[in-house]
Amino acid sequence: MIDRRSTNATTCIAGIGQTPYAKWGSVMDRSELELCCEAIVNACADAGMDVDEIDGFCSFGDDRNQPSLVATTLGVPGFRYANMVWSGGGGGSAAAVLNAVLAVHSGICRSVVVYRAICQGQFERYGQFRPRPLSSFAAPFGLHSPPNMAAMMTRRYMHETGTTKEQLGEVALAFRRHANRNPRALFADRTLDMDEYLAAREIASPFSLYDCCVETDGACAVIVTSPERARDGRQRPVSILAAAQGSGPRFGLGLMGSWNMPAETFATLNSKEVSDQIWSISGLGPKDVDVAQFYDAFTSLIPMALEEYGFCKRGEGGPFVADGHLDWAGGSLPSNTAGGLLSEAYQQGMNLIVEGVRQMRGTSTSQVEDAEVCLVTSGANAPHTSGLLLGRC
Amino acid sequence: MIDRRSTNATTCIAGIGQTPYAKWGSVMDRSELELCCEAIVNACADAGMDVDEIDGFCSFGDDRNQPSLVATTLGVPGFRYANMVWSGGGGGSAAAVLNAVLAVHSGICRSVVVYRAICQGQFERYGQFRPRPLSSFAAPFGLHSPPNMAAMMTRRYMHETGTTKEQLGEVALAFRRHANRNPRALFADRTLDMDEYLAAREIASPFSLYDCCVETDGACAVIVTSPERARDGRQRPVSILAAAQGSGPRFGLGLMGSWNMPAETFATLNSKEVSDQIWSISGLGPKDVDVAQFYDAFTSLIPMALEEYGFCKRGEGGPFVADGHLDWAGGSLPSNTAGGLLSEAYQQGMNLIVEGVRQMRGTSTSQVEDAEVCLVTSGANAPHTSGLLLGRC
Repeated sequence: MIDRRSTNATTCIAGIGQTPYAKWGSVMDRSELELCCEAIVNACADAGMDVDEIDGFCSFGDDRNQPSLVATTLGVPGFRYANMVWSGGGGGSAAAVLNAVLAVHSGICRSVVVYRAICQGQFERYGQFRPRPLSSFAAPFGLHSPPNMAAMMTRRYMHETGTTKEQLGEVALAFRRHANRNPRALFADRTLDMDEYLAAREIASPFSLYDCCVETDGACAVIVTSPERARDGRQRPVSILAAAQGSGPRFGLGLMGSWNMPAETFATLNSKEVSDQIWSISGLGPKDVDVAQFYDAFTSLIPMALEEYGFCKRGEGGPFVADGHLDWAGGSLPSNTAGGLLSEAYQQGMNLIVEGVRQMRGTSTSQVEDAEVCLVTSGANAPHTSGLLLGRC
Repeated sequence: MIDRRSTNATTCIAGIGQTPYAKWGSVMDRSELELCCEAIVNACADAGMDVDEIDGFCSFGDDRNQPSLVATTLGVPGFRYANMVWSGGGGGSAAAVLNAVLAVHSGICRSVVVYRAICQGQFERYGQFRPRPLSSFAAPFGLHSPPNMAAMMTRRYMHETGTTKEQLGEVALAFRRHANRNPRALFADRTLDMDEYLAAREIASPFSLYDCCVETDGACAVIVTSPERARDGRQRPVSILAAAQGSGPRFGLGLMGSWNMPAETFATLNSKEVSDQIWSISGLGPKDVDVAQFYDAFTSLIPMALEEYGFCKRGEGGPFVADGHLDWAGGSLPSNTAGGLLSEAYQQGMNLIVEGVRQMRGTSTSQVEDAEVCLVTSGANAPHTSGLLLGRC
């Protein structure tokens, strides 16, 4: 067994890339493969790396861009490692980085690209019904899509902790303010206030429109490589201080999710397994985190994640948000500084990693001064989740 | 970077499991998930391990059994690692073992199960048309399913090397003889001779019926763990001497496969990348291999693999087979000793790994005396392939 702390510390992110983001269906004239390759080419250019140097491919979320197709399209002469993390609540983006870390650290690969491309207009929309395992048991009761499912556990969470709709609204408002400072964000030009938030149409109680992320087409990519190679690149390298994946007990009965779990399990929630690893591998803790990118497919995931990762005690996530701690302007834990999945784009978490790298480089449009450690989470209270701790070099 | 030789040597296979195999559609009263869990439970029982000890899940081939669902069904309290290898010519079974090796060696997991379950009757049949990337370009020309595609590259291979239909037949006959000694094999009770082979109906020239593997429902699983844990188990541990994944240049244009590759690339074929790694990591070579399990979705893949892995020079694979070298009875390289994908079952390569473990334990129904090293290949001339070198402990 090797020291996982040393494993992670021997890898860096050297490049980030993305395509423009667009509302679902609006880039239907471009294929998902084309978007995927564009993001990878952009990440290589950003790193100052020839595409030929990529010899590993990692993705997640049942990405349809098989590496053999991507490699051939890009003209990459071959690869020695390719895998992906199953779908499930977007829990896989940081886990895909973990897979890349293992390939680089073990010496299998020089440089691995982690990517995700989504064209919802061309395939299926996340916001609409699609058949899943066991959906024949759940769909007749109205559990058609992620908002329905997340609403169930959110309602229980609010009931048990006293978290209010207005506190969820503060999440949406804070991240929208960050998106308003980020020209790449889908909602760069659209402000949001509490009245508009509360008046929005209901999607699945307690969620209304602005509690739900925006269905987005686009692609993101990051390049994981050795510190030596990263130092020779075009950008300031960003250290991977820890990467972990995990799933809690009795979680995965398909759509049954976590809302019917025993109280003690629901209370510790699912990301506990991941947060324990993140802090143990890195030797750091919540107090060391300068900036965070939380998986925000829905507003309620933020107070939950704050509790799961140890920033707050149980039930204190809502008040913590309402006190303005997540705000770039004056908050103690500026979060989702590009606007997050709610207001920048829903790239199933990959854009959160890209923004985390920007923060560690010092190039975010809402840069946190002197930030040295950034937490990125993938999924919260999902069938399996993952997390990533990035460090300034 | 660590020494990959040491990485691999620090992991073992401690348990193997399988369900009964049945022709596609004949176990439609049992779900793919049920078969998957049965194979895993059997592997744990074989290892003398409680299912609770499993904390990692690896699969391949777009397996539909998501680990969150499998873990919950099995009652596993949680897991820390789960990934899979994309589909593509069954190239992923050994690569899934590589993923498990990385998880165990890095200390993320204690014991990882590698599994594959297939119920073709419930989903799609491999032998029938199913839409794939770029299939709209290929299907109109008759390229509907794997036999059509493999036939194209086989025709070219035969043209360039002089390999004959009768030499392909010797592959089918040798593996059928091994199946006749294996009660688990689908074709345990059905013999095959050259006349019957040559008279069989054509599937896709040059393939006739017995050149193609049998569509099978069932599941297989193996457990990868540390040597220490494996030694405490119920079985003789089997060492993983090397595991590797790879893809050659310009391979993956969807269904275009390898038949239209430049001659120099087609000649070195695609598994060269994997075989180079296998020999370099293990410090061994073809001459050290006592028994082999070659990916035999089609007969022609065997002479190709013999050449790709260095057992034969280019063009000598066919004569090598015809000389009886693959036969358990007196051959110099007994291969597919349980009957292979052609005559035991098509579990997309997982049953080849299970049989490789049996050979290293000394428990095959066609046991090779004093066998100490077993090569297992996954896919050949496929978009991406992988390989595994197992050692007797």
